[in-house]
Amino acid sequence: MVYKGKFITFEGPEGAGKTTVISKLFDFLKEEGWSVIITREPGGIRIAEKIRGIILDNEHVEMDAKTEALLYAAARRQHLVEKIIPALDKGFIVLCDRFIDSSLAYQGHARGLGIDEVLSINEFAIGNTIPDLTVFFDIDPEEGLARIAKNSDREKNRLDEEGMQFHRDVYNGYKELIHRYPDRIVVTDASLSQLQVIENVSEIISSRLI
Amino acid sequence: MVYKGKFITFEGPEGAGKTTVISKLFDFLKEEGWSVIITREPGGIRIAEKIRGIILDNEHVEMDAKTEALLYAAARRQHLVEKIIPALDKGFIVLCDRFIDSSLAYQGHARGLGIDEVLSINEFAIGNTIPDLTVFFDIDPEEGLARIAKNSDREKNRLDEEGMQFHRDVYNGYKELIHRYPDRIVVTDASLSQLQVIENVSEIISSRLI
Ligand SMILES: Nc1ncnc2c1ncn2[C@@H]1O[C@H](COP(=O)(O)OP(=O)(O)OP(=O)(O)O)[C@@H](O)[C@H]1O
Ligand SMILES: Nc1ncnc2c1ncn2[C@@H]1O[C@H](COP(=O)(O)OP(=O)(O)OP(=O)(O)O)[C@@H](O)[C@H]1O
Ligand SMILES: [Mg+2]
Ligand SMILES: [Mg+2]
Repeated sequence: MVYKGKFITFEGPEGAGKTTVISKLFDFLKEEGWSVIITREPGGIRIAEKIRGIILDNEHVEMDAKTEALLYAAARRQHLVEKIIPALDKGFIVLCDRFIDSSLAYQGHARGLGIDEVLSINEFAIGNTIPDLTVFFDIDPEEGLARIAKNSDREKNRLDEEGMQFHRDVYNGYKELIHRYPDRIVVTDASLSQLQVIENVSEIISSRLI
Repeated sequence: MVYKGKFITFEGPEGAGKTTVISKLFDFLKEEGWSVIITREPGGIRIAEKIRGIILDNEHVEMDAKTEALLYAAARRQHLVEKIIPALDKGFIVLCDRFIDSSLAYQGHARGLGIDEVLSINEFAIGNTIPDLTVFFDIDPEEGLARIAKNSDREKNRLDEEGMQFHRDVYNGYKELIHRYPDRIVVTDASLSQLQVIENVSEIISSRLI
């Protein structure tokens, strides 16, 4: 890639433990003296927040799947330009909670738009800022959702309301991406204990990037 | 095309007379007994209106050109799915005030994103619903803007604030599209009197479509 920093993204089913693990990883990297930021779309970027508001509004039942995919790409673009690229330029390690692969798995595969079609609009959005490394948190979608169910203080949005088959389709979409991008995407077993997952992901990052 | 109806779009510099002429044309076609609708993006479609609100907000000076292009494509998609395609399916003539060529000329050419790049996201958005006919209102951008200046009750939005060079670039973008799509785009001299333009455009539509 063309930046001084490193761009690492985290993907996987809902409840796989991405957000929890990234936060520990952030502390760990900081303690080791790295310049590092955590972000996730829309990343506090006001234009991206407004776009996200349109996507997730429970009222918008008439939203077409391609409209949704284009809106995600638009929010991603603005977040990238305002936050990710400036940090990479300054040499930061950017830990990003979900990125392009979420669109490919959710809109491309699970919504049936086609991975290649959704890839083309996302290539427009991200240009050559492809992640240096993507860690896939591998867990049965049922198990992930069960973890979330235990944790009741999370509000449901328009996408959470999807049925189990949808989440299975998302998982299968991810499997296709792992097959397609074997160099970029590294799989970690997310059904292990949190401590074990953190250790394994730290190991992946150390061996691959630092 | 795949629909019972006919899809006609109108393009050209600001102040060329598109909106004025389409409205007369609508009356004329109705009188002749055709089923016809007039529309323009965002077309009263609530999701498209909200997207448009983000694009045109004067506050959003930080908006990236690619974000803008993706948002236009998203609003276009929703307007197409909710309004244009259902009308075409029912056999209506759809008169649409600006469509894909505006994005190609404004974002693709004038903003420098590249016509092909903006075309690719718009192909994703519109699929095979390509206009049957596009009428280009040919006028010097200066002359068009002078017409608008006379008419003071039109509020300025974020895009109107652009300088003269931008409007010239838009015009040059259109010229490239006319060259690229000689079968779809028909040019009409929009510097003539309103009566003459209406007569010429009616003639184009009659001879090409009806
Ligand atoms: N390895 C683990 N074992 C058991 N529970 C875990 C593990 N990792 C995280 N959890 C718990 O699972 C729940 C979901 O975790 P988290 O929110 O980090 O998942 P996520 O992958 O970020 O989900 P989402 O995609 O919805 O953002 C939390 O309650 C978290 O404490
Ligand atoms: N042929 C004409 N000759 C002179 N004035 C005209 C002609 N056609 C339209 N006008 C006037 O020019 C002004 C702009 O016309 P109109 O709003 O129809 O342009 P437009 O192409 O729709 O512009 P925009 O792209 O900004 O929507 C109006 O005041 C209209 O009355
Ligand atoms: Mg999370
Ligand atoms: Mg007009």
